[in-house]
Amino acid sequence: MEGGSRRWRFASPNPAAAAAGEWSVRPYLLDLRGCLDEQGPRPVIPLSIGDPSSSLSFCTAPEAVEAVAAALRSGEFDGYASHDTDLAARRAVAEYLSCDLPYQLSPDDVLLTSGCTQAIETVMSVLGQPGANILLPRPGYPKHEAHAVFHNMEVRHYDLVPEKGWEVDLEAVEALADENTVAIVITNPNNPCGSVYTYEHLSKIAGTANRLGMLVIADEVYGHLVFGSTPFVPMGVFGETVPVLTLGAISKRWVVPGWRFGWIAICDPKHILKETKVFNSLRSFKMLTSDPATFIQGAIPHIMKNTNDEFFSKIIKLLKETAEICYSEIKETKCIICPQKPEGSFFMMVKLDLSQLSDISDDVDFCRKLAKEESVMLLPGTALGMENWLRITFASEPPKLKQGLERVKSFCQRHLSYGVPSQH
Amino acid sequence: MEGGSRRWRFASPNPAAAAAGEWSVRPYLLDLRGCLDEQGPRPVIPLSIGDPSSSLSFCTAPEAVEAVAAALRSGEFDGYASHDTDLAARRAVAEYLSCDLPYQLSPDDVLLTSGCTQAIETVMSVLGQPGANILLPRPGYPKHEAHAVFHNMEVRHYDLVPEKGWEVDLEAVEALADENTVAIVITNPNNPCGSVYTYEHLSKIAGTANRLGMLVIADEVYGHLVFGSTPFVPMGVFGETVPVLTLGAISKRWVVPGWRFGWIAICDPKHILKETKVFNSLRSFKMLTSDPATFIQGAIPHIMKNTNDEFFSKIIKLLKETAEICYSEIKETKCIICPQKPEGSFFMMVKLDLSQLSDISDDVDFCRKLAKEESVMLLPGTALGMENWLRITFASEPPKLKQGLERVKSFCQRHLSYGVPSQH
Ligand SMILES: Cc1ncc(COP(=O)(O)O)c(C=O)c1O
Ligand SMILES: Cc1ncc(COP(=O)(O)O)c(C=O)c1O
Repeated sequence: MEGGSRRWRFASPNPAAAAAGEWSVRPYLLDLRGCLDEQGPRPVIPLSIGDPSSSLSFCTAPEAVEAVAAALRSGEFDGYASHDTDLAARRAVAEYLSCDLPYQLSPDDVLLTSGCTQAIETVMSVLGQPGANILLPRPGYPKHEAHAVFHNMEVRHYDLVPEKGWEVDLEAVEALADENTVAIVITNPNNPCGSVYTYEHLSKIAGTANRLGMLVIADEVYGHLVFGSTPFVPMGVFGETVPVLTLGAISKRWVVPGWRFGWIAICDPKHILKETKVFNSLRSFKMLTSDPATFIQGAIPHIMKNTNDEFFSKIIKLLKETAEICYSEIKETKCIICPQKPEGSFFMMVKLDLSQLSDISDDVDFCRKLAKEESVMLLPGTALGMENWLRITFASEPPKLKQGLERVKSFCQRHLSYGVPSQH
Repeated sequence: MEGGSRRWRFASPNPAAAAAGEWSVRPYLLDLRGCLDEQGPRPVIPLSIGDPSSSLSFCTAPEAVEAVAAALRSGEFDGYASHDTDLAARRAVAEYLSCDLPYQLSPDDVLLTSGCTQAIETVMSVLGQPGANILLPRPGYPKHEAHAVFHNMEVRHYDLVPEKGWEVDLEAVEALADENTVAIVITNPNNPCGSVYTYEHLSKIAGTANRLGMLVIADEVYGHLVFGSTPFVPMGVFGETVPVLTLGAISKRWVVPGWRFGWIAICDPKHILKETKVFNSLRSFKMLTSDPATFIQGAIPHIMKNTNDEFFSKIIKLLKETAEICYSEIKETKCIICPQKPEGSFFMMVKLDLSQLSDISDDVDFCRKLAKEESVMLLPGTALGMENWLRITFASEPPKLKQGLERVKSFCQRHLSYGVPSQH
């Protein structure tokens, strides 16, 4: 090959970009997919990722579809978003969020993003620089870590404590923070734990953050998806105590992650972020990046105002039912322990008791063999920073979920140290 | 205020994020909007940004709207894109682009992005690192520069030469490049110059890039929008000579910039980017970022296959007409010189002859006064790196365009050094 020996000058691109993909559940899922028995007689049951929109029972509100279809057909939203369209969408989000806050957000406090993913990316781009560090939960959502690291921050993990309903270990937070700690990320309702923080706990987080002089990044993409005894309280409620950047999206509550509409809300009634450079930097950086599709922006005021409460209740009722199924099935499964019944989001974090299993070396091994033998996919906890744990998604049709968990049960039975191998 | 004197630890966020907004035309447009006379009797005529979708004549193909509406209504594309949906969309783009190439792209050579903007962002994220430099055209598209700088690259500008039909000054390129030059960016058809590069010129660019060991990033978001004597030749045609990353979108050709669908195509039949780490880094980084809306992905195979040729011809015919109007009106305007009749995209770059004007200090001053006195918006060349030039967009309804340019003419007349002030 001509010039084969010649060194191309682009041969060593940014190593952080290559490494970025490691903080993603996708490589784990691809690996599991490779383990599936293609010839297997039974349909695959994926309980590994949180996308209920593939289940018929979880389809979105018809009002929402209508609003987008109308915006599309009008022909008025094919161009870049006009000032009016953008403003109306930001106003709708500000009003939607303000319902649960003790103060009003203005449209200027809202930035529109392409899903919560771009909200994470934007915040990390603005805060990240060499020398800065950020506190992230363990277990956590891999994209928080990926974007923090890609944007040159040192990541320090604080634990979520399973014995305390997956609350934040605030002593650990105090110990980890130093003068270069710019922010703490919390996810509430929580992926992967299924926990929902109480008002009191959130208040303590706010107090700690205030004392340590760091801002709170609240990933509330699962906001309002709660079905236990703890109500959803947005972190922005404590905006007087500490500035909060709330990240959200319609992805989960409206069951439309494919529509790619999210936001950053600056919950900061004392205007501390305006006095510092964070507010302007966020606006400035956002000018460079891609906006959500204009006709979705055009539909947002209608979606936010007109979605029927019955739709939300239906989804919550369904999640309550599937969470129940998930919890009770796992309780009957030997060698898997669930420290906490899920109360929010659509996930549950469970612990493998490897000592009871004969030929399973770790969580990844468990998931690979489970995929192969039972055509069921679970996410190994390693993907989220918790070795020998598993994440189970219960956003699935109840019968399918039940069937999947039955298969997990018989898989465990078969691999028990003293279990009798069952015919299969 | 409690803790008002206390230093928050996030008070100095990444300075590059704050600076990022400066490489954008938006601050210039906001400034011009502020100059408009709100009470003025005449409607504002914006010839400053390239978004024809607001003009009725430039509405998109009904087949394209139908395809998106059908995908939306099916309810099958509300979730994250499935492997099949993603693959089908990448295959459609690969086939679309391969029509004009001497080899076939495979779906694996295509990454989907949220418009060409995210394609630029992704490429710069992967190539950028301290020490690397990149060659960008002057005049140029500000987001190229913004993302290059944000991702730690040193930017070196090569000139486009107005006297040579805005061709790349290849001698300057040779002089600018060194062993840390990773890439050269070219935009063809060109924003802001309206030029279209010949096969011969592109071939020379490829040869130069090969010799210098750098890859070519070809921004072809205006691909196929040509209406002069030079046909559109994609840079990928020279993929055997040098690896090319082709950036594109449906934004311009289908007149739907609000739909946010674009791509990166890896045009590299010799697999040099596979051997180096660029290919894997692009895929890896893309896992972290937001995808285009799933129902747009679902519609893409239909959009690419079924859009009627008549739609494309209609758009080209219209652009040919408006380019003609723009060129002839400007030729009649004293003190504005157009070095080259536009043959592609929807822009024209023209030079101010300040010596003929009595009370205009520079291009920004010209545009501000024009906005105030005539309610016409043009983009000052300064926003694109060319002081005392102007960018005019001709993607507008012909009568409105004509009227806007008549106002420019009378504005110039009024401000001529020896001109007679006209009543107004
Ligand atoms: C905690 C958390 N944050 C953000 C996201 C991304 O949300 P989106 O699909 O809106 O980009 C997810 C998706 O699963 C999530 O679990
Ligand atoms: C040269 C160039 N590249 C990229 C873009 C961005 O394209 P998109 O709207 O698809 O993000 C534009 C938009 O005007 C452009 O002129």
